[in-house]
Amino acid sequence: MDEFDQIAALFRPLTFGAPEALDLMDDAAVIAGRPGFDLVITKDAMVEGVHFLKHDPPDLTARKLLRVNLSDLAAKGATPFCYFLAVAWPPAYDEVGRGLFADGLRRDQLAYGLSLLGGDTVSTPGPLTLSVTLLGWVEAGRMVKRSGARVGDIVLVSGFIGDGGLGLQAARGELDGLGADAVAYLADRYRLPSPRLALSAALRDHASAAADVSDGLLADAGHIGDASGVALAIDLDRLPTSNAAAAWLGRQADPVAASAALAAFGDDYEVVCTAAPQTVDALRTVAAKAGTSLTRIGEVRAGQGVSARWRGVEIAIERTGWRHA
Amino acid sequence: MDEFDQIAALFRPLTFGAPEALDLMDDAAVIAGRPGFDLVITKDAMVEGVHFLKHDPPDLTARKLLRVNLSDLAAKGATPFCYFLAVAWPPAYDEVGRGLFADGLRRDQLAYGLSLLGGDTVSTPGPLTLSVTLLGWVEAGRMVKRSGARVGDIVLVSGFIGDGGLGLQAARGELDGLGADAVAYLADRYRLPSPRLALSAALRDHASAAADVSDGLLADAGHIGDASGVALAIDLDRLPTSNAAAAWLGRQADPVAASAALAAFGDDYEVVCTAAPQTVDALRTVAAKAGTSLTRIGEVRAGQGVSARWRGVEIAIERTGWRHA
Repeated sequence: MDEFDQIAALFRPLTFGAPEALDLMDDAAVIAGRPGFDLVITKDAMVEGVHFLKHDPPDLTARKLLRVNLSDLAAKGATPFCYFLAVAWPPAYDEVGRGLFADGLRRDQLAYGLSLLGGDTVSTPGPLTLSVTLLGWVEAGRMVKRSGARVGDIVLVSGFIGDGGLGLQAARGELDGLGADAVAYLADRYRLPSPRLALSAALRDHASAAADVSDGLLADAGHIGDASGVALAIDLDRLPTSNAAAAWLGRQADPVAASAALAAFGDDYEVVCTAAPQTVDALRTVAAKAGTSLTRIGEVRAGQGVSARWRGVEIAIERTGWRHA
Repeated sequence: MDEFDQIAALFRPLTFGAPEALDLMDDAAVIAGRPGFDLVITKDAMVEGVHFLKHDPPDLTARKLLRVNLSDLAAKGATPFCYFLAVAWPPAYDEVGRGLFADGLRRDQLAYGLSLLGGDTVSTPGPLTLSVTLLGWVEAGRMVKRSGARVGDIVLVSGFIGDGGLGLQAARGELDGLGADAVAYLADRYRLPSPRLALSAALRDHASAAADVSDGLLADAGHIGDASGVALAIDLDRLPTSNAAAAWLGRQADPVAASAALAAFGDDYEVVCTAAPQTVDALRTVAAKAGTSLTRIGEVRAGQGVSARWRGVEIAIERTGWRHA
């Protein structure tokens, strides 16, 4: 298959007939403005062996690629619309692998309401290298930014923290002492995150700031602090954890250090957000109705970046790129 | 430098203060609609050793990356606005190389009126792998598509054809028998194409269809034919060539085969377009005023795809992905 046959066979069906894609037969896509709405645009890249494992199934890799980008839109309160794909195929990625990859895209496009509008496929002597540019719509002026946190706001996080990092260890076969079910659950959480799009409307209506948890809870809370010119204090004893992560925590000698590790792991693809105290109940209620839990894990104070506490006492956190509290 | 220091040092200055970029401190960029305009979006990827040479200067690689994308916008009649960048850095790409890369981006951003709005930087064990998602504006409904060519239209091409492919050979030191000046000129044309943005307005007003010449003149003319449901007949004896390419042509035993090779090479980043006979003069005049030549190289006929002629006689062209005429 040459590039054009490949586009026709694998990718043209993924436009789902969107007129903006021009059947992938043009140099570019064209998107008409939508009165009263802004476009929210994010672009994330993934490299085999760095962001996913060499032997991960191609369809799961494709779905993770879409989901890490969808996670950004979820945190911004946006509704997914379309995407552009760049794929650099290594020689070993044969027609079967490419077909599975396209199947994974199709499946999550259907799940999340996305069409493919364009992009590029090239060959590489290196590892499979991917990027997606994802576009969503949000009511004009209402994107939830990182910069809106105010002193006195409450910090909340969706779902569970730490599963992504433990899941990477599980997928690599490096996680000892847990049952097979817990290991399988965690590995699956690493391979296939669940972007919290159900939170979008609640965040838009009730959050003062939000970010997705991709670099790690402490790092991403710090990004909100930096962008807002405030400090986020995170209570490590309040982290919401899955049963599997709780089982792992129970086996660690130092619960404080272990909790700090969970909060430093990346790849959770949850949402960390802030809200004024009087809107927290509304935010949590709307989120719960949408099927997503939001747990209070701290508060916004004067200062800069992020700090960590254990049972109310501030503790020092050390990690590349992060300073002592 | 960790990723955040790198973003602050190298990339934040490249936003040129565009409010949509949110200082690269958020999960996404946000773009307000522009009443009366559509967004034109293209995404091209480049891999070291595939789309540029391993030892090409980083600043030229960065500029080529922007320019191959700008070339798409030029062919669509759009005005460049902003871009999103994904970079996968190999271990050997040190701080000096990254700084030169960012300098190249800055230089062409200034030349073409672009700001950086977002993206992702990751590491790779493989070659330098790049993608740009480029956005431009065009008056609503007026993007120049590939699908507008009609039987009886004239086919034109900007600038010179064949320099890109000869330039690749020149840059590799594989082009014998030409003077040092010609070799240097051609290598430079490969390393740094000139997107024909000066043509945008003329194409919008007078062309029926257009595409940029990245896959090769015959291939890209064929794309117009396929998208329009017509056939483009290209006169290989009329190809506009640079002095260097003409000197190369003069040394080839078979001028027909050599001209067909020039028309099959990629990387020219010119524009091939079609126009109704009565608008050709206006199109060429406006283009000439904007400093760009447009040469008549064929006509649109009933049929499909592309065919080639030499002094009026149809000839068979053979090339991967292309059928006999």
